[in-house]
Order: sequence, then C-alpha cells, then structure tokens
Amino acid sequence: MIRFECDYNEGCHPSILKRLEETNFMQTAGYGEDEICESARQKIKKACEAENADVHFLVGGTQANLTVIAGALRPYQGVLAAISGHINVHETGAIENTGHKVLTLPSSDGKINAAQVKEYVKRHYDDTTHEHIVQPGMVYISHPTENGTTYTKQELRDLYEACQENHLYLFIDGARMGYGLVYEGCDLTLADFAKYSDVFYIGGTKVGALFGEAVVISNDALKKDFRYLIKQHGGMLAKGRLLGIQFDELFENNLYTEIAKYAVSLAMRIRKAFEAKGIQMHYDSFTNQQFPVLNQKQIDTLKEKYSFSIFEKLNEEETVTRFCTSWATKEEDVEELVKDIELL
Amino acid sequence: MIRFECDYNEGCHPSILKRLEETNFMQTAGYGEDEICESARQKIKKACEAENADVHFLVGGTQANLTVIAGALRPYQGVLAAISGHINVHETGAIENTGHKVLTLPSSDGKINAAQVKEYVKRHYDDTTHEHIVQPGMVYISHPTENGTTYTKQELRDLYEACQENHLYLFIDGARMGYGLVYEGCDLTLADFAKYSDVFYIGGTKVGALFGEAVVISNDALKKDFRYLIKQHGGMLAKGRLLGIQFDELFENNLYTEIAKYAVSLAMRIRKAFEAKGIQMHYDSFTNQQFPVLNQKQIDTLKEKYSFSIFEKLNEEETVTRFCTSWATKEEDVEELVKDIELL
Amino acid sequence: MIRFECDYNEGCHPSILKRLEETNFMQTAGYGEDEICESARQKIKKACEAENADVHFLVGGTQANLTVIAGALRPYQGVLAAISGHINVHETGAIENTGHKVLTLPSSDGKINAAQVKEYVKRHYDDTTHEHIVQPGMVYISHPTENGTTYTKQELRDLYEACQENHLYLFIDGARMGYGLVYEGCDLTLADFAKYSDVFYIGGTKVGALFGEAVVISNDALKKDFRYLIKQHGGMLAKGRLLGIQFDELFENNLYTEIAKYAVSLAMRIRKAFEAKGIQMHYDSFTNQQFPVLNQKQIDTLKEKYSFSIFEKLNEEETVTRFCTSWATKEEDVEELVKDIELL
Amino acid sequence: MIRFECDYNEGCHPSILKRLEETNFMQTAGYGEDEICESARQKIKKACEAENADVHFLVGGTQANLTVIAGALRPYQGVLAAISGHINVHETGAIENTGHKVLTLPSSDGKINAAQVKEYVKRHYDDTTHEHIVQPGMVYISHPTENGTTYTKQELRDLYEACQENHLYLFIDGARMGYGLVYEGCDLTLADFAKYSDVFYIGGTKVGALFGEAVVISNDALKKDFRYLIKQHGGMLAKGRLLGIQFDELFENNLYTEIAKYAVSLAMRIRKAFEAKGIQMHYDSFTNQQFPVLNQKQIDTLKEKYSFSIFEKLNEEETVTRFCTSWATKEEDVEELVKDIELL
Repeated sequence: MIRFECDYNEGCHPSILKRLEETNFMQTAGYGEDEICESARQKIKKACEAENADVHFLVGGTQANLTVIAGALRPYQGVLAAISGHINVHETGAIENTGHKVLTLPSSDGKINAAQVKEYVKRHYDDTTHEHIVQPGMVYISHPTENGTTYTKQELRDLYEACQENHLYLFIDGARMGYGLVYEGCDLTLADFAKYSDVFYIGGTKVGALFGEAVVISNDALKKDFRYLIKQHGGMLAKGRLLGIQFDELFENNLYTEIAKYAVSLAMRIRKAFEAKGIQMHYDSFTNQQFPVLNQKQIDTLKEKYSFSIFEKLNEEETVTRFCTSWATKEEDVEELVKDIELL
Repeated sequence: MIRFECDYNEGCHPSILKRLEETNFMQTAGYGEDEICESARQKIKKACEAENADVHFLVGGTQANLTVIAGALRPYQGVLAAISGHINVHETGAIENTGHKVLTLPSSDGKINAAQVKEYVKRHYDDTTHEHIVQPGMVYISHPTENGTTYTKQELRDLYEACQENHLYLFIDGARMGYGLVYEGCDLTLADFAKYSDVFYIGGTKVGALFGEAVVISNDALKKDFRYLIKQHGGMLAKGRLLGIQFDELFENNLYTEIAKYAVSLAMRIRKAFEAKGIQMHYDSFTNQQFPVLNQKQIDTLKEKYSFSIFEKLNEEETVTRFCTSWATKEEDVEELVKDIELL
Repeated sequence: MIRFECDYNEGCHPSILKRLEETNFMQTAGYGEDEICESARQKIKKACEAENADVHFLVGGTQANLTVIAGALRPYQGVLAAISGHINVHETGAIENTGHKVLTLPSSDGKINAAQVKEYVKRHYDDTTHEHIVQPGMVYISHPTENGTTYTKQELRDLYEACQENHLYLFIDGARMGYGLVYEGCDLTLADFAKYSDVFYIGGTKVGALFGEAVVISNDALKKDFRYLIKQHGGMLAKGRLLGIQFDELFENNLYTEIAKYAVSLAMRIRKAFEAKGIQMHYDSFTNQQFPVLNQKQIDTLKEKYSFSIFEKLNEEETVTRFCTSWATKEEDVEELVKDIELL
Repeated sequence: MIRFECDYNEGCHPSILKRLEETNFMQTAGYGEDEICESARQKIKKACEAENADVHFLVGGTQANLTVIAGALRPYQGVLAAISGHINVHETGAIENTGHKVLTLPSSDGKINAAQVKEYVKRHYDDTTHEHIVQPGMVYISHPTENGTTYTKQELRDLYEACQENHLYLFIDGARMGYGLVYEGCDLTLADFAKYSDVFYIGGTKVGALFGEAVVISNDALKKDFRYLIKQHGGMLAKGRLLGIQFDELFENNLYTEIAKYAVSLAMRIRKAFEAKGIQMHYDSFTNQQFPVLNQKQIDTLKEKYSFSIFEKLNEEETVTRFCTSWATKEEDVEELVKDIELL
C-alpha cells in the first residue's frame, strides 16, 4: 500500500534525525529556554522579517489553535472561521472547551473574505440585543485552507484591514504553511504573514518535522504571559530543545521551503495526470493536497494499491477524494500513481 | 557546568534514536493507530499484568493529568491531592482551567494516606450544606512524590480501598514511575499500580524517552471515549507512532527498569556522600531525586561546577536543595560531584 | 406606547404578589428546602403525572439551559439544536462557556425532527475520524419554538425514540411552555413532556411569574447531585421560597394554563386581524407570539402607538415582525391594535 | 422555633413589596434597561460618591462573584483570598468552574492584609519557574467577612495600594455590606469602598431585599462589555426592573443603612447577653453575626426554642456557634433569647 492519505505518514527530514543524534547527550535547560530554541527563534524571526515578534514552539496544531485563541479572547467573545475551518470541524470542540464559540461564515472553498467579516461585525453591533449574542473577537483563517486553496496578498491585506478596523485579531493557522508559499505565482511570503496578522504559526508536523508548530506573535497585546498559557494547556514540552532542534534545521538553508517545493511539484504531477484524464479537481489547489472527483469504479481501482481520503460524497456517482504529497513522498510512488491514473 | 538540576536535561536513550532512524520512512497511519503503538501497548499491558487495561500515549505530564482528571470528574467535583502535589503547585492551574478545584490535604513529605481521605469525605457529607462545597471525586497521588518519597504496597492498597468505599477514583501520576520501582526493598510493581488504581501513568519523559507518558486505565468507566478527550485537549499527536516507538523500546528487555536502576544507584552514591559528610537529607528518598540541606557556603561552592535546584529555604542558614540523576547521568560526573562533596 | 414587543413587560400575576405579602414575615429554611417549595414541587409532579421526577426551581432560562446541559454532557460532547435555537443565538455563548459546542441542524421554522437527529448521529459514527469531531450527546428543542411553532405528540415521541436509540438525552426548553399547551387541537400535555423527555422545564418568567423556571428531571441519570450543579452556576437562590411561592400559585387551580389560554386567545385575535387584511404570517403560530410580514409603511404606522420586534428582514420591502401577548396583556389594548390593523 | 440561623429567613422590607404592587402592571423594557433600574443606579452612584462608576444588578452573591472574577482575570490568573473566603469554601467551586484557581492566604478571622498580598506576589515573581504557577491577578475580600469582622479605612487603603503596586484588582464582596457600615466607630463608608477598590458589590439579599446584589465598578478596565458577561453566566434577569425596584427602595431615605443599624443593634444585645454570662465570642464582630463559644449543654438548651448555626467544633467541649439578626428580626424574639441566655 502506498499512502497518499495525509502528509504525516512518515517520520522527519533526515537532517533533523542527524541533529537529534548529535545533540543527544548535550545538557540543556528545559522548557524551551535553551540555546538551540533561541537559535531557531532567531532564524524564524529573520525569515519573517519580524525582529520584534515573539516566537514560541508548540507540539501540535490543535494545541496551538486552542492556546492562541483562549489567550486572545475575552470570555464572551468568539472566533470567526469558515464553516469548514479546522477548529470548527476537526478538533473535538477544543475551542468550545476553552469556553469560546466558533462563529461560522459560509465558504465553498475554505476561504473567507474581508466583506464577510465586515458584514458580520456590522450585523452584530446593529442588533439592539447584541449583548445576548457572542461578540466576534478574532478571525481565524488557514493558509493553505483545508481545501488546499490559498489567499493572495491583496486578500490577506484586506482581511487584516477589516480586522484592524473592527477590533478583531487576525490569526492564521499555518499547519501546512510551507506548502502554501511555493506555487508558481504565489505573491505571499512569511514576512507578509507576520505583517498582515496578529499571530500565525508555521507548521512543522506536516512539513518535515517529527512534530511542532512555531507560533509567531506580532501584536504586542498577545505577547504578554504567553508561556503561562502554553503551560496551562499542557503544551510546554519539558525537553523543549526538541522543538528548537527541528525548527533550527528547517530554517537552515531554506530547507523548509525546499522540501515544500518538492512536495508541491509532485502534487502538481498528480493533478495534471487527473486533469489529462478529464477528471475534475474539486478545489483549485496549487498545494500538496489535490481533490479529484472520482466515481466508485475509479476509487475501487486506485484503492487496490493506494490509500487516500474520501473527502465528501457529492452525489450518487461522484466523490471528492484527497491525495496528499509531502516532503517524504517518493518520486517513484508518484510515477506509479500517475501511470495508474492514465489507465483509469 | 554539570547539570543535576532535573531529569530532563538530555535527549533520549540511544535505542530510541536508533529505532526512529530505522522507521523514519516507514509509512503508518496517524494518531496512534499504527502497528508500533499497538506493539507498545501490548508490552505495557503485559508488564502491568493487565490484559483488560486500556493504554494511551500522551506527550507530557501536565497534559496527562488534565486529560485524565477532566475526563473523570463531574463538573462540581474536585480532586484530592497533597498540598505539594504537582497539579496543585506546578501546572499553572491546568486542572482549574478544566473547571475543577484541587482539594488539598496537608503533607510533610508529599504523601497522603487513607485516613486523610476517609476523614475528608466524611467531613464533606456530614456538612449539611455540602451541596455548597466542591464534592471530592478523585484522589491524585504521585509515585514517587515530588519529594522523592514512595508508597508501600500496604499504603497503596489502603488508599485504593478508601477510594473504593467512598466512590472516588484513584489516579497515580507516575511521571517518575521508573525511579520509584527499583530501590532495595521496594514491594511495588507496575502490576500493583494497575491493580490498585483506576488509572495511572508510566512516565517516559524523565525516564529515557524524548517525551511521552503511557496512561494505563484499569477502570472500565474511565475507558470510554478517552481518545475524544485526548484530541479535545490538543494531546493527540499526528505522528502518534513516535510515542509508540519510544515505549516499544523502553518496554523491550526491561530497558525501562534497567535505566531507572542505573539512575537510582547514582543517586544513592550522591546521598551517601552527603550523609558521610554529616549533611542531612530533607526527605527520605530512595529514588533519583535527593534533597540535601545545605548552607549558603556549601551551595556557593557547589554552584561553581554544578547546577542543581533550590527547593525550599528552611531558615536563614539552611536551604533544601535538589540533585537529580537520570538514565543519562554520567558516572564520571557523579564521581566528580562525590569528590567535591567530600571536600565541602 | 403599548408594548407587544415581548412577554415580560410587566410584573406578575396578582395572586403571586398576594402570596408574597402573606408569607413575607414567615421564617423558612433557605435554598429551596422550605415547605412552600416542597408544596410547589408536589403540585408540579402531579400536573406532570410524574411522581418519580425531580423538580428544581431556577431563576431564568439561560441559567436553566446551561445548568442542565453542562450537567448532562461529557466534556467532548455537544448538544444538537435547531440553528435558530435560543442556546445557539441568544445566550452569549453560555453553553460554549461551559465547554460544549452547540451542533446546529437546519430548520426553517424552529423545529427539528427525528430523521435529522438520526442522520446526524449516523454520519458522526460513520466518519472514521469521529474522535476528532464533537460527539452528539443531547438534543435540545423548545416548545413552543422561538418562532411560535409547536410539536405534535407524534413528533415529540419520534424525537424521543430517536434519542433513546442513539444514547442522546432529550431536553426541552419550555420557557414559553404554557403558551404551547393551550391552542385548539393541541395534543400535548405536561405529562407528555415528562414522559417523552429526559429533562424539560416549565417557564414561569414569561407565563405569570416574576421570574423562575421549574426543571423537571425524569431520567434518573440526570437527577444525581443536581443541586451541586445549581449552586456551582450561581443559580441557587438564598430565599428559595420565592420560587416556591410563584410555582405554588401558578399550579393552584390551573392558573398556569388559564392565563396562557387568555394570552393565546388575544394573540389569535391579532393574527386574525392581520390575516383579514391579507397580511401573511411568516410562521404558523398558534401561541402567544405572532409574526406578520409587514412593509415599511405598515411598520411606521404601527410604531407610532405600539412597540413590537423587528424579527428578520426578508427583502427590500418585507420584514417579519413579532407581536407578543402575555397573561398581562389588556384586552382593550388588543382591541385598539386590531382596529389600527384594519386601518392599515 | 425562632430562627437566628441566617439573615435570609424572611421575605423583604415592606416598602419593596409595596413598590412591586404599585408598579406591577407598568410596562417596561427588559434586562435592566428600564427607568426604575436607571433611577436605582443613580441613587447608588450618589451614595457611593462615584459618578463615573458603572452599576449593574445581579441576582445573587455567587453569581456576582463568578461574573466579576471570570471577567477580570486572564485565563492563567487566580484570585487571592482568605482561606475561609466564601469563594473558596462555599460556592461549590464556582470560581474554578470558570477556569480560575482560588489562591488562599492564611487568616484566623477572615481578614487578610496588605503585607500578605505583597509577600505572595513577591514570592511568585521571585520563583524562576513562575510560569508554571498560577499568576495572582486579583485580591478578593469580604466586608464584613464570613466571621463578622471588618476592615478599617487604613487597612482597606493599604490593601488597595498593595494591589495597585502589584497590578492586582481589588474586589470586595459586600453580601452583608450594610451590616459592616453601621457599628460605632466604623470609619468606612460606601464612598470609601468605591474609592479603594476596583469593583465591589452592595448586598441586597441579606439586607432587606428579596434578592439582588448591586455591583459597583470603579475601574474603567472592568466596565467594558460587562453586560455580555452577565448574560453569558445566566445572570441577566428578563424582568430586570425587579432588581431596580428593590435597590431604588433600599437607597431611598437611607433605608439600607437604617435597617442595617436596626439589625446590628439587636446583634449587639445578643452579644452583650452572652458576654454578661461569661461566654466568649470567638470573633470580635460588631455586625449582625455573632459567634459565641458554647458547650453542648448550652447548645442543647437553646436549640429547644431557637435555630442557629454550628460554625466550628473547637474541641471536645466547645463549639463556635453563629447567631444572625437581620432587618426582619423581631425585637421580642431577641428579648426572649436574651432572657434564655441569662438563664443558661
């Protein structure tokens, strides 16, 4: 079985393993206060052109989401998100468990826009009984989204401005950030995300690391006491240096971007193979996730050799599926898949 | 600087690194549903002589504590713990953050006993206004405690019986479990902990792993839907196999116990060196943590070459300090420390 | 200005004031443990033909909702409700504040049905990643709904059976319960609600009381320690007898039903006046709330003398409005409104 | 049986009942936005010499405590209180249920002082691992305390200054406030409480009202969106005017103070009777609560005719008891008690 079902099927980039080995008996302080974490933080700040940002390392995405959101909102505030947003559908109510409602906006492709945010806020405050309604306090987006779609610089800037004008924080879930920075024509950089958000994170788990997400906080109001928040939510790794080691490697010599490029180029080969076959892609993704619409026969055929996700049943005949590549995907596996697609 | 300040200064046992390397490009399912996790679970159940137990892997101790406690208690219930219990003093209110009060019992050495539990429960229900008071729902102990002290089998059994009679769950924090199983005369085994508790965990972070705690649930009532709880609290590792790999190695050929023995033997050499010098140990610990009472001059002298913790100021002259060994402590470092103690 | 904007514009039924006066200097125990509360509980159990039910008095609806729901659900569970349900839109996230997600079902008239519930649960457990998704644990409906619509006995029974089969609690918000029991052809009684639910409440605030909701718990699993839950959420009234007094009066000589009948008869006169004028009612309500679709000119005309709610803008021209009657509405005020409707 | 067990055995001051009657059919807006509430707010601001304060009415004390505290603290912060503080012992963990730890300070008489607060904060920040410990964010005191003791102006000012210097809010629970303002030599006024606190409340439930606490917020930072907080916690009374009516009456012609004076004068007669008999008062209370230390025979004798509280068993022979008076206590009942004390 060749796995394309997700982007966390393997371990980590070999350079990380090597570094783990080299540093294994080195003695360091705990809880992220060691020199390797500090080095990784500096590299990330540089990559983000954000000298004044604070950088914290967390173990996983749900943990990063709940820690950031619970720390930013007042008790009666909620977080605006696409109805398909990860925090709304795939975190077992982690946000609600911290006391906050996820306020959903309709979205056909995982993205939301500035106009939606403005209208939501206006409608809230226009309501004379708004004190009986959860107050919007933050906007949460993902880049790329759960559907592999991406924002343009203009869209991001507009969202950030809408947030600024309406006293909302903008928080960007970058669990797959790397894969959303490398497609042809992409006009967004890490520096843009640091500039046009209050807080965002750079995903490691799905982009070369064993685990780990690097939270980058640009807004001073969110920086204070963030380590208390991490600890309280059980996210402070005793051997914090493990996170430092991984990001220190990923941000050495553009490794993070390079491996993302590799994964995306393989994904585009899969996309082209499907399209050449006349198979429609449900979302217009230029990232490592591809969503071909297959019929049951096609699914059955491919299932014999490959694992992939059933994303959504469109109707009796058609099903949206998901194929993921990653930094670890083997070219020969993709070649084989491409051939099998051609034979469908 | 030679570090004795804690037991998580280094990476992990080399066999784990080796296994990480070997399995790095293996493709597995995520979230702990892979074959390595399954193998590790089987080994742990066997070590605990608890075929019917459920075993789950979590990343860290605070996470394990909050996930277990929040999952077990009704909203108006609290958890009984020694006033010095880790959940009461060193987790930034993680338990309260899940809505539950830590109900403290006095303790001079980190341990609590069955009589205290019984009396607390009796006093609660004897109070005619007990509905205005947090109801005790669970007892939390650590083995070894924060003070390096340990329970005997009789004490554990008595506590468990007191809990059974009073409809309380007994939960044992085993963040340093390994170090509490190997001293001379120890009459407790992992099987006893599985038998005389509703749920407990076997700490990896401080005993040879990079990170990870294995939660062992004996009580059926606590098994249901535990994975929902893990996910909700942000504790479900995407590459769950990392936890499986570590525990699969630690529970191969008694590695877990062997490395604990090694650490404790070094700790005992340190203890003996202090005692030979007429220096008093504040707690009677036969585990990897030792608590010599030092004066300022002694502290200053040792601080030049060694890092260790200031645990508690007793009075103007005396301070309780803490020296930890671990699976990674080097014999030559201990030899050096012993010599320097002799010179004090 | 004559107010039809809601059903809590006035004080309470005079018989309650009289009883308050008579009992004012009587000395009783606090917190609902007095003899008047006990008498009221007995009357309610009799009215519900539910000798084994537990009855508790709470001050308001949001408090009743959050206390019942937080007490019934496991931490990772959510409560299914119509998207327009009060807990979803008008309680400032009170349910999420207790840690639980409101899982919404589409509804055009405020009602949901058994088929929706079954399908939701099936879809949940069919999802192989269901542990990453909030688990449905309860169904919440209102009778009457926010739209004045009502369930039939068959619909209620079907819902209850769907809940039973799927291990969900059924909870019924009866903030306006009285007004939903008295229309011509209504085939539901309080006894049916006690029989076909796990817990429901009988609203006092909007049906003759100064304040107060009587929670009736039929399911034994939900009875245990309910008073702890009330106290913890700040809902335990020191002078609990005030609640007893009100329900003891409301359940004497059918007062509760009688005043509801009166209010509904006035509402039906308003409805008929609108319909006679060719004005459409947006929801088919036979309760004290009526929802005529008015144009701006009609709204402006009526606004000169009457207050009423703007419920929803349908389009540029049409707006759904809400007119409420209550036990306190004066017949002459309704007569005057009817005349003014005729003149529109 | 004559009840001295608490100060909420009866209904309310007759002038409130009269006002309820007069206004019963008046139509007002809901949720505290009516003219009577506004009038009451103005009177309270005047009584507190605090034109810029915000005044909100809540139904009960636990509700007021949890709403204020949950609104003021960051998620990782706790509230400092005397170990005997109401929030620590008698609210079923309501504060913890909102996610916050109650950080206890020792106290022999219910009071805490500025030095304790300063030391606690210093110790917290001196600890190098303070991010692993709940951060103090607020100080909670009661005036009078659970033990009937009271603060002097100097003590209050010192506490407030300690809070200011250490970035802590000072919150005063005034559930029995009236009874703590009227003893001979009392140098504190409502204006002092408004001046030397960030937020406090004036209790109605125990001082003449049916129910209700008036929260007075002096600190601007705590004013924002307070109504959202009230609603979210289920504390927003639909017929808010009921609270307005009660405080509008209590703050007309000094009624609040007058009835408190009356109750305290009766309490002092009881105190003097006990003292004349050589019976010791356990706390030095000049308020409506008195705490004589009785032996079992004395208790048994008095129990025949009177109800009172068993507060604490001192030893085999002696028990601290509590006798309360209130605005509603009858002089003849006190006379009778005094006679029976003389006969002990």
